Amino acid sequence: MEGLILAIVAGAVALVFAVYLAMRVLSADEGTDRMKEIGAAIQEGANAFLKREYTVLAGFVVIVFIVLLVLGLVRDEQDEMTAVAYLVGAISSALAGFAGMRIAVKSNMRTAAAARTGLNRALRVAFSSGGVMGITVVGIGLLGAVILWIVFEDPNIVAGFSFGASSIALFARVGGGIYTKAADVGGDLAGKVEAGIPEDDPRNAAVIADNVGDNVGDVAGMGADLFESYVGSIIASLALAATGAAFLGGPEVVGRDSSLAVLPFVIAAVGIAASIIGTFLVRTGETTSIGSLLWSLRRGIFAAGILALIGSFAAVYWVMEAQGGFGMENVWRLWGAVAVGLGAGVIIGVSTEYYTSYEYKPTKGIAARSVTGPATVIISGFATGMLSTAIPLIVIAVAVIGAYGLAEYYGIAIAAVGMLSTLGITLATDAYGPVADNAGAIAEQAHLDPEVRERTDALDSLGNTTAATGKGFAIGSAVLTSLALMAAYAKIVGLEAIDLLEVSTLVGLLIGALMPFIFSALTMEAVGRAAQDMVEEVRRQFNEIPGLREGKEGVRAEYARCVDISTKGALREMIIPGLLAVIVPIVVGVIPFLGKEAVGGLLIGAIAAGALLAITMANSGGAWDNAKKYIEAGAHGGKGTDEHAAAVVGDTVGDPFKDTSGPSLNILIKLMSIVAVVFGTVFAG
Amino acid sequence: MEGLILAIVAGAVALVFAVYLAMRVLSADEGTDRMKEIGAAIQEGANAFLKREYTVLAGFVVIVFIVLLVLGLVRDEQDEMTAVAYLVGAISSALAGFAGMRIAVKSNMRTAAAARTGLNRALRVAFSSGGVMGITVVGIGLLGAVILWIVFEDPNIVAGFSFGASSIALFARVGGGIYTKAADVGGDLAGKVEAGIPEDDPRNAAVIADNVGDNVGDVAGMGADLFESYVGSIIASLALAATGAAFLGGPEVVGRDSSLAVLPFVIAAVGIAASIIGTFLVRTGETTSIGSLLWSLRRGIFAAGILALIGSFAAVYWVMEAQGGFGMENVWRLWGAVAVGLGAGVIIGVSTEYYTSYEYKPTKGIAARSVTGPATVIISGFATGMLSTAIPLIVIAVAVIGAYGLAEYYGIAIAAVGMLSTLGITLATDAYGPVADNAGAIAEQAHLDPEVRERTDALDSLGNTTAATGKGFAIGSAVLTSLALMAAYAKIVGLEAIDLLEVSTLVGLLIGALMPFIFSALTMEAVGRAAQDMVEEVRRQFNEIPGLREGKEGVRAEYARCVDISTKGALREMIIPGLLAVIVPIVVGVIPFLGKEAVGGLLIGAIAAGALLAITMANSGGAWDNAKKYIEAGAHGGKGTDEHAAAVVGDTVGDPFKDTSGPSLNILIKLMSIVAVVFGTVFAG
Repeated sequence: MEGLILAIVAGAVALVFAVYLAMRVLSADEGTDRMKEIGAAIQEGANAFLKREYTVLAGFVVIVFIVLLVLGLVRDEQDEMTAVAYLVGAISSALAGFAGMRIAVKSNMRTAAAARTGLNRALRVAFSSGGVMGITVVGIGLLGAVILWIVFEDPNIVAGFSFGASSIALFARVGGGIYTKAADVGGDLAGKVEAGIPEDDPRNAAVIADNVGDNVGDVAGMGADLFESYVGSIIASLALAATGAAFLGGPEVVGRDSSLAVLPFVIAAVGIAASIIGTFLVRTGETTSIGSLLWSLRRGIFAAGILALIGSFAAVYWVMEAQGGFGMENVWRLWGAVAVGLGAGVIIGVSTEYYTSYEYKPTKGIAARSVTGPATVIISGFATGMLSTAIPLIVIAVAVIGAYGLAEYYGIAIAAVGMLSTLGITLATDAYGPVADNAGAIAEQAHLDPEVRERTDALDSLGNTTAATGKGFAIGSAVLTSLALMAAYAKIVGLEAIDLLEVSTLVGLLIGALMPFIFSALTMEAVGRAAQDMVEEVRRQFNEIPGLREGKEGVRAEYARCVDISTKGALREMIIPGLLAVIVPIVVGVIPFLGKEAVGGLLIGAIAAGALLAITMANSGGAWDNAKKYIEAGAHGGKGTDEHAAAVVGDTVGDPFKDTSGPSLNILIKLMSIVAVVFGTVFAG
Repeated sequence: MEGLILAIVAGAVALVFAVYLAMRVLSADEGTDRMKEIGAAIQEGANAFLKREYTVLAGFVVIVFIVLLVLGLVRDEQDEMTAVAYLVGAISSALAGFAGMRIAVKSNMRTAAAARTGLNRALRVAFSSGGVMGITVVGIGLLGAVILWIVFEDPNIVAGFSFGASSIALFARVGGGIYTKAADVGGDLAGKVEAGIPEDDPRNAAVIADNVGDNVGDVAGMGADLFESYVGSIIASLALAATGAAFLGGPEVVGRDSSLAVLPFVIAAVGIAASIIGTFLVRTGETTSIGSLLWSLRRGIFAAGILALIGSFAAVYWVMEAQGGFGMENVWRLWGAVAVGLGAGVIIGVSTEYYTSYEYKPTKGIAARSVTGPATVIISGFATGMLSTAIPLIVIAVAVIGAYGLAEYYGIAIAAVGMLSTLGITLATDAYGPVADNAGAIAEQAHLDPEVRERTDALDSLGNTTAATGKGFAIGSAVLTSLALMAAYAKIVGLEAIDLLEVSTLVGLLIGALMPFIFSALTMEAVGRAAQDMVEEVRRQFNEIPGLREGKEGVRAEYARCVDISTKGALREMIIPGLLAVIVPIVVGVIPFLGKEAVGGLLIGAIAAGALLAITMANSGGAWDNAKKYIEAGAHGGKGTDEHAAAVVGDTVGDPFKDTSGPSLNILIKLMSIVAVVFGTVFAG
C-alpha cells in the first residue's frame, strides 16, 4: 500500500506544482491594451471551440457509457464499473486538456510582453505555461489511475479509464488538428500567397483562428494524446502483472499490493519528481542562438531523465526486493526495462531531430531541391520522411526484443512506463512551442518593436524542433503502449497465439494496416475542405470590407467568422474518422468469420502501418517546414525568390501531414488497442 | 501427363502467335526518313541500356547461382538443381523483357506512320506490339514452369525458376523505373518548365532518353514484373498441392501427374487460348472518343475473361473429376477459386479506374484544388491515393477468405492463377500504352500533320487509363501470389504457426512493414538525383550549343549524352534497393534471435505495407497525371494558367510515385517471399 500512497502523494504534489506554475504565469505582465485585446480574442475563440467540442463529445461519451453499463449488467464477464471508470477517464482527459489550453491562451500575450524586456523572461513564461500542461497531465493521469486501482483492484475496470481518456484524445487531436490547419493553410493561401501580405498580419481575417488553432490543436490535442499514452502504459502493466510474475518467478501475489502492480505507479511517481526538478533548470542568458536556447531546454530534459533513471533503480529495488522479495536479478531485469524505454525515447528524439532540423543534411538537401521547383521539394521531402522511419522502427524493434527478454510483455509495458516517466517535462517543452508561436503573432499584430518579434522567433524556431522531437516520442511511446495493450488483450480474451497462418488473423491484419491509410486520407481531405472554406471567407472580406486590404486605420477584419468556420469544419470532420476507430475493432471482433484472432491481427496491422505512416508524415512535415525556414534564413536566395516559393509549397503540404494526420495516428492505434481490451469479452471466435 | 502436354502445346502456340503478331507489326510502314532516324535513335538507346543492365545483372545472377549451387551441394535439404532452375528463370525473364522491348521500339514509328492513315490502323499496330509482349510473357512463363516441373517433379526446385525471374524483374522494374523517370522529370523541368518549350520538342536533349525510358521502364519492366507473378502463382500452387489434397479429401497422389499439380498448368493453358481469341476482338472504327477506344480494348479483355471463366470450368472438371476422381463438389470449389481470382481482378481494375480517370469525382476534385495552388493539389492527390486503397484491400481480404474457404491456401494460389490466366491480353493493353505515347513523340519530333498527333494522343490517353488499371491488377495479383508463397514457405520450413505473440514474429513484422518505406524512399531519391543530373545536362546544351534554343535548321541536341546519364543513373541507383530485397529476408532468417518465425512476420508485414503503399503511390500518381490532362482538356482555364502550372507540379510528383517506387513494391514483396521459399531450409529457429 505504501507504493500506491506514494503515487497519490506524487500526483497531488504535481497538481500543486502546476497551480504554482500557473500562478507564476498569471502574475506576469499582460502588455499593452492592444495586446490584451488580441489575447482576449484568442481566448474567446479557444473557449468557444472547446465548449462546442466538448458538447459534441459529451453525447458520444454518454452513449458509450450506456453501452458499457448495459454490457456490464447483462454479461457476467464484463463489470459495469468499467462504465464508471470510462466516464472518469473522459472527464479527466477533458479537464487536463482544458486546463493546459486555458493557461496557454493566457500566456501568449504575457510571453510577448516579457519578450519586450528580454529573452530569458520570455522563455520562463512560455515554458512555465507548457509546464502547467505537462505536470497537470501526469498529475491527473497518475491520480486517476491509482485511485481507480485502489478502489476496484481490477485492471479490466481501470482499462475503462484509459478508454475514456483515449476517446477524448482522439477527437481532441483530430478536431484540434483540423481546426488549426484549416486556419493556418487557408489563412496562408489567402493572405501570404494571394494577397501578398506577411504571416500573422492583422488584415488577414484568419489570423485569430490560426492563433486559436495553435492552442486547441498543439496544446490541448497533444496533451490529450500523451495523457492517454501515459495512462495506457500503466494500465497495460497492471493487466500484464500476472504474466510478469509467472515469468520472473517471484511470489505470485496478485492483487492490489502485488509488487508488479505497484511498480508502474512508483516509477511514475519518481518520474514526476524528476520532471519537477528538471523544470527548475530551464533558463537561459541573453542569447538568441538556437543552439544555446535548445541547450537550456535540454538541460532540463536530460537532468530529469538521469534523475528518473537513478530514482527508478531505487524504486524498483524498494518495490521488488525490499517489499516483494523478488531477488536482485529481477530488480536488474525490471530496471533494465525502464532503461530500455528511456534510452529508446532519447534515440528516437535524436533521430527525429537529425531528419527535421536544418542543421543537418536531410533538410538541407530538401532545401537544395527548391532550385528545380516545388515538385522536387515534395519528392525529396516525402522520401526523407519515409527514410526517417528506419531508425525509430529499428530502435523500437530492439527495445521490444530487449524488454521482452527481460520480463516478457510485462517488460514491454514497463519500458513504456519508463519512456513516459519524464513526460511532465518533455510535454512541457512541447506545449511551450505554440505559446511562443502565438506570442510572435501577437507581437506582429500589436506592432511591437521588431526586436520583440526577433526574440519570439528564436523561441518559436526552437519550438519547431522540440515539437518534432515530441512527435517522435509520442509515436514511440504509442507503439510500445499499444503492443503491451495488445498482449493484455490476448490475455484477457484467452488467445494462446495470434497465428498469421489462420486466414482470419491475416485478413484482420490487412484491414488493420488499411486503417491508418483511410484515417489519414479522411483527416487530410478534411483539412483541405475546411481550408477551402477559409480561403473563400478571407477573400470575401478583402473584397467586401472597404479599406481592409489597404490596412486603413480603424478597419478590422471580422475574425469571429473565421473562428466559426474552423470550429464548424473541425466538429463536422472529426466525427467519421473518430467513429471508425471505435467501431472497426468491435465489428471485426463480433463478425463470426473474423472474431478475436482477427482483432489481434487488426491491432498489429494498425500498429505497424500506423507507426510508419505517422513517422513519415510527422518528419516530412517537420523537414519541409524547416527547409523553408533555412531558405528564409538566407540559403538559396532567401525570401521572395522562386526557391522560397517552392519551399512554401512543401511547408503547406507538410502542415496537415505533421499537425493533423500524422499525430492522430498515435491515438488511432492506442484507441483501437484499448477498445479491443475493453470489449474483448464480447468477441466471437 | 495429358494436362502437362496441353500446357506445353499452349506455351508453344503462344510463342508462334507472338511471332505472327511481331511479323504483322514489322510488315507495317516505317514512315518518313526523319521518323526512321528518330526510331533508330530510340532503338539504339534502348538496346544500349538493356545490354548494360543485363551485363550488370549477369554478375549478380552468377553470384546467386554459385551460392545456390554450393548450398545445394553441402546441404542435404537443398537441391543443387535449384541453381539451374534459377539460371533458367533469370534468362527466361530477361528474354521475355528483351523481346517485348525490342518489338515495342520498332512499333513506335510504325504506329506513328499508321496514324497518318487512320486511327484503327494505328491502334492495331500499337496493340499488336503490346500483344507480342503479353503473349511472349505467358508463353515463356508457362513453358519454363511446366518443363522444369516435368523434369524435376519438385516444387522447391521449380521455385528457383521463380526466384531467377524475380531477381531480374526487380532490377528491371527499379532500373527501368529510374531510367524513365529521370529522363521524364529531368526533361520536363529543364524543357517545359524552365525553357518553356513543349513536351517532346526535339530541341530538348532529354527527349530521346524519355522515349527510351518508356520502353525500358513501362514495357520491359512491367513485363518482367508480371512474368514473375504469373510464374509465382503457378509455383505456389505446386508447393501447396499436398495441403490442398489433404483438405479436399481426394486421392493423395502427390507427384508429377497429381491432379492438384496439373491443374494450374491447365488453367493457364486455357487462359492463353482465351487471350489469343480476345486479341482478335480489339479493333475500332474511325473515332477519337476515348470511350469508344476504351470499349474496343475492353471488348477483348472481357471476352477473354468470360472465355477463361467458362474454359476453366471445363479444365477443372477434366483434371479433377474426369482424371482425378475428386468429385463434383471439389470441382465447384476449385472453379470457385478461379472465379474469385478473376472477379477480384475485375473489381480492382474498375476501382483503380474510378480513382484515376478524370471522368470521375476524385480526379476532378484534385483538378479543382488547382485553384488554390500546387500545395492543395498535392494534399488532395495524396489523400485520394490513400483512400483508394480501401476497395482493393477489402476485395483482396474477401478473396482471401473466399478462396481459403474453398480450398485453403491452395485455393488462394489457384485464385492467383485465375486472376493471371488472361495475362496475355491484359498485359498487351498495358504494354501498348508506351508505344502510343512514343508514337506521339515521334510525330511531334518529325513535324507530322497535327491530325496525326491528335490520333496518337487519343491512343495515349487511353494508355494512361489502361496503365493505371494494369498497375492495380499487378499489385492485386502480387498480394495473392505472395500470400500463397508465404504459406508455401511455412510448409517448407515446417512452421505450424506464425504467432504474433512471439516477439520474434512481431519484430519480423515491424521490419517487414518498414521495408516498403525504405525501398520507396531509396527509389524516389534515386529518381531525384538522376533527374537533377539530367536537368543540368539539358541546361548545359541549351547554353553551349549555338542555335539549339532557337531551333535553328540543322542544329541537333546531343541526345546520346542524356541517354547515357539515364543509363548510368539507373544502373548506379538500382543496386542498393535490389540487394536489400534479397539480403534482408536471409539475414532475418539466419539471426538466431529472429529466425524462421520472424521471416514469416517479415513477409506479412512487407505484403501488407507494400500493397498499401503501392496502391497509394500508383493511384495518386495516376490521378495527378489525369487531373493535369483534365485541365489541359479545358477545365479550370486550360493550359498556360496558374491552375495548369499547379497541376503540372502534381503530375511531376506523381511520376516517380506511379512509375518507379509504386510498381517496384510489387516485386519487392514477391521477391522477398520467393527468397524465403528458396532459402527457407537454411533458416534458424
